[in-house]
Amino acid sequence: MIQQTTIEDVYPSRLKTPGIIKRKDPVVYDRNPSDVDAYLNEDQLNFYENNGFLIFESFFFQEEITKLQEELDRLRNNKAAEDNPEYFLEPSSREVRSIFNIHRTNELFRKLSCDKLILKIVTQLLNSPVYIHQSRINYKPGFDGKEFYWHSDFETWHMEDGMPRMRAISCSITLTDNNEFNGPLMLIPGSHQNYISCAGKTPEDHFKQSLKKQEYGVPDPDILKKMADQNGIVSFRGKAGSVIFFECNIMHGSNGNISPWHRSNVFFVYNSMENTLVDPFCGLKPRPEYIASRDFPPLKPF
Amino acid sequence: MIQQTTIEDVYPSRLKTPGIIKRKDPVVYDRNPSDVDAYLNEDQLNFYENNGFLIFESFFFQEEITKLQEELDRLRNNKAAEDNPEYFLEPSSREVRSIFNIHRTNELFRKLSCDKLILKIVTQLLNSPVYIHQSRINYKPGFDGKEFYWHSDFETWHMEDGMPRMRAISCSITLTDNNEFNGPLMLIPGSHQNYISCAGKTPEDHFKQSLKKQEYGVPDPDILKKMADQNGIVSFRGKAGSVIFFECNIMHGSNGNISPWHRSNVFFVYNSMENTLVDPFCGLKPRPEYIASRDFPPLKPF
Repeated sequence: MIQQTTIEDVYPSRLKTPGIIKRKDPVVYDRNPSDVDAYLNEDQLNFYENNGFLIFESFFFQEEITKLQEELDRLRNNKAAEDNPEYFLEPSSREVRSIFNIHRTNELFRKLSCDKLILKIVTQLLNSPVYIHQSRINYKPGFDGKEFYWHSDFETWHMEDGMPRMRAISCSITLTDNNEFNGPLMLIPGSHQNYISCAGKTPEDHFKQSLKKQEYGVPDPDILKKMADQNGIVSFRGKAGSVIFFECNIMHGSNGNISPWHRSNVFFVYNSMENTLVDPFCGLKPRPEYIASRDFPPLKPF
Repeated sequence: MIQQTTIEDVYPSRLKTPGIIKRKDPVVYDRNPSDVDAYLNEDQLNFYENNGFLIFESFFFQEEITKLQEELDRLRNNKAAEDNPEYFLEPSSREVRSIFNIHRTNELFRKLSCDKLILKIVTQLLNSPVYIHQSRINYKPGFDGKEFYWHSDFETWHMEDGMPRMRAISCSITLTDNNEFNGPLMLIPGSHQNYISCAGKTPEDHFKQSLKKQEYGVPDPDILKKMADQNGIVSFRGKAGSVIFFECNIMHGSNGNISPWHRSNVFFVYNSMENTLVDPFCGLKPRPEYIASRDFPPLKPF
């Protein structure tokens, strides 16, 4: 498939039948841990290369997390803001599910997105400066938080936003304790090595629905089961202030949350400056700026 | 509140406001582990008394479980039976969620319900012969299995079936592996010591809706949170063939299941022959026989 801009689509999706395409991009772009700016050691690089994620417990101090939690509660209870396009509500309970674009609209989260250590890690793995492709708070409220179905972020970002290649990293920071009961992130280790091409055409303005409950860009159940049977599933559990970095193509999702405990995380997507967006590969108009930035200012550490 | 039959309702519920009533019944009815038929030792009796449940891993042999799994698949794929009232389907996917009355309609599960060791345990705890109040298979299919919200079984059995007192035990047998990913049973230890009286009037034929998604007989969120904060939550995970016995008034529920792995269990409720049903305490007509037996034949071990 050739786009008008003559960029070849090496990761086609949303076709008639599902399929598996071998990954065509590196996972770790700088394999030399002796570089001056390197933070991750060889074991960590190997783990990320093979599994597609890296977890750090207690990455932030309690004082930092307490401030962020207060801001989180303030944002959540800001009823006046619920009509903003950045706010997505739970389909049934009308509680806040996600707030997008938080690195631009909130000073505390802007600073957090430029955390020096986070930037050291992502720029090392991607071997280039980065900008933020997307940011959001995911609340997943207690009692009634709904699931996020299995997906590769890259599949959506490629098809609906025009991200050309796999050279981006998601960073999720726990703002409440994430435990086995409140619907923690689940990942299939090693699944970033294959691109799961999904069946079905993308509808217009798909994001308005998909960010509440995804129905297109959904991986085939037989492929999913095979991957999970072979590689298992890992959950990301940890006290508030833990961090996971995960590769843009890793298959992940999370169950709902009937526990009384909120499972709230903030989520930043760092994309390489050498991987900025082109036209969406699904052929439709791009998603709004607050979901997928088409402005690419390289980040400087705070 | 006085019923027409002049049985005092010591556990009122479905009133205007929620509330907490101290348990008025024993948990362990026979505290003497030296009885001839006793199977549980003193530590196990104490654990059950305090926590409201007891778990046994690998209670059944693999050969027994394989037979039951084959029967499970056969029942599940019996499309012709889906119109039977005993079959409850998932609201969205129309996959089988539960099959009731399985101890009467299926010979293999009938024998299982009379397992000698199970009967030894429940008759010891209840200090009386027992009959089966309810039985069901819960499938919770992979990818799209929905949650079971928090509830005390006794609250429903008391209000909608007319079970007078807390002298019944649920026994759940895992027919697939139950793990942290496929929505295992979650319990609040010690919650059986209090009766959570729920707000709201029971609608007619409530079971048709409630067995898919419960909206009445739902405990107050503030009370739930306080209980979980104080006592924590425990999940019942184990290989196929594990068993949990849990007290009829313990607060429990389970999250949905987006994992590719079915979480299928069979569930028998043993009620004491000294606790047989009267008229439902909500004042409506009783639920159907296949959900709550009004026939009380004492069980003999198989």
